[in-house]
Amino acid sequence: MFEQKGILFILSGPSGVGKGTVRERLFEQDTELKYSVSATTREARPGEEHGVHYFYKSHEEFESMIEQNELLEHAQYVNNYYGTPRAYVEEQLNLGNDVFLEIEVQGAMQVKENFPEGVFIFLFPPSLDELKNRIVNRGTESNDLVMNRLKEAKKEINMMSEYDYVVVNDDVNRAVSKVQAIITSEHCKRERIETEYKTILEDDLNA
Amino acid sequence: MFEQKGILFILSGPSGVGKGTVRERLFEQDTELKYSVSATTREARPGEEHGVHYFYKSHEEFESMIEQNELLEHAQYVNNYYGTPRAYVEEQLNLGNDVFLEIEVQGAMQVKENFPEGVFIFLFPPSLDELKNRIVNRGTESNDLVMNRLKEAKKEINMMSEYDYVVVNDDVNRAVSKVQAIITSEHCKRERIETEYKTILEDDLNA
Repeated sequence: MFEQKGILFILSGPSGVGKGTVRERLFEQDTELKYSVSATTREARPGEEHGVHYFYKSHEEFESMIEQNELLEHAQYVNNYYGTPRAYVEEQLNLGNDVFLEIEVQGAMQVKENFPEGVFIFLFPPSLDELKNRIVNRGTESNDLVMNRLKEAKKEINMMSEYDYVVVNDDVNRAVSKVQAIITSEHCKRERIETEYKTILEDDLNA
Repeated sequence: MFEQKGILFILSGPSGVGKGTVRERLFEQDTELKYSVSATTREARPGEEHGVHYFYKSHEEFESMIEQNELLEHAQYVNNYYGTPRAYVEEQLNLGNDVFLEIEVQGAMQVKENFPEGVFIFLFPPSLDELKNRIVNRGTESNDLVMNRLKEAKKEINMMSEYDYVVVNDDVNRAVSKVQAIITSEHCKRERIETEYKTILEDDLNA
């Protein structure tokens, strides 16, 4: 009766923050969540399946997807393209499945541009002291390099403003249960369900 | 390090929807949540404590609280006043405690006016069919009365628009865990923590 479209959740944050671990643990616990399957031009490795691990594309196909705006984000590593096909995400959402995407900050910002209705979760470093120590206490580095790293860290933290939620990764299990709480509560948001509930009620009452 | 102000959560919804049961079950599980202590002009019953069960006030004191806008909401039942003192709520929030208020729809709307930064949760009837059946199938009632009840139900459902979240009370445990998820995820909202996180970081990096 209360069927809802799925929601796209994007988990991102500075490199090294532990996005991959949080995502793995989350998928161990939530078997209904769909992981966003990426497209790539790299060759399938033994055991990998098209449509499960990746959608394997030729360079020409991939570039045509870029041109047709069929990707929520894409990037190039070494000589291969990687990207998130919009079609797969929308198909799953229309089936009522939530889709989960774990991605670097830059990719997340591309997704935000192409799919602003997604729910963006920023994974925050376990401790700011640690972050500072990592930056400042690399004794061998020049002052200039330290200053650059400080700037970079500040830039990354400032990206936080583009996100809907911030989860501190002080403990993987705690972070995972916060992400799960966000998923649950997003489905309870009034603006997502109001129209549908009211329509059902009107239909019911007029029946 | 990441200390946050508490949040006021308001659980409301049509009468008979099961607000009280959800609140009781929630408090069995979450011992850190503070229940909002009401003020009243009725006499303390044996075993009741001032500041625990109620803040006991004279009619004069209560009316002065109304005049001074010291109540987030109030109502009169029989010959007594009942209301939610703003001071208690704010004190708890400043201590970093979440405060929970379970209240009728009309009271919730008063709270919303006086404390819009609260998080408003609408508890939805277990099933709309049931609601419809309850309204239509009271065989003995006149058509006019049925029509009036239908209108009333529609009005109540329309109040939903004033809320942040809607939780269907199809199963008490499920409803409670949804409310808990909302509490957890509200604390992860970027706008609640951004300034603080950034300030801490700046302080850290400049130290």
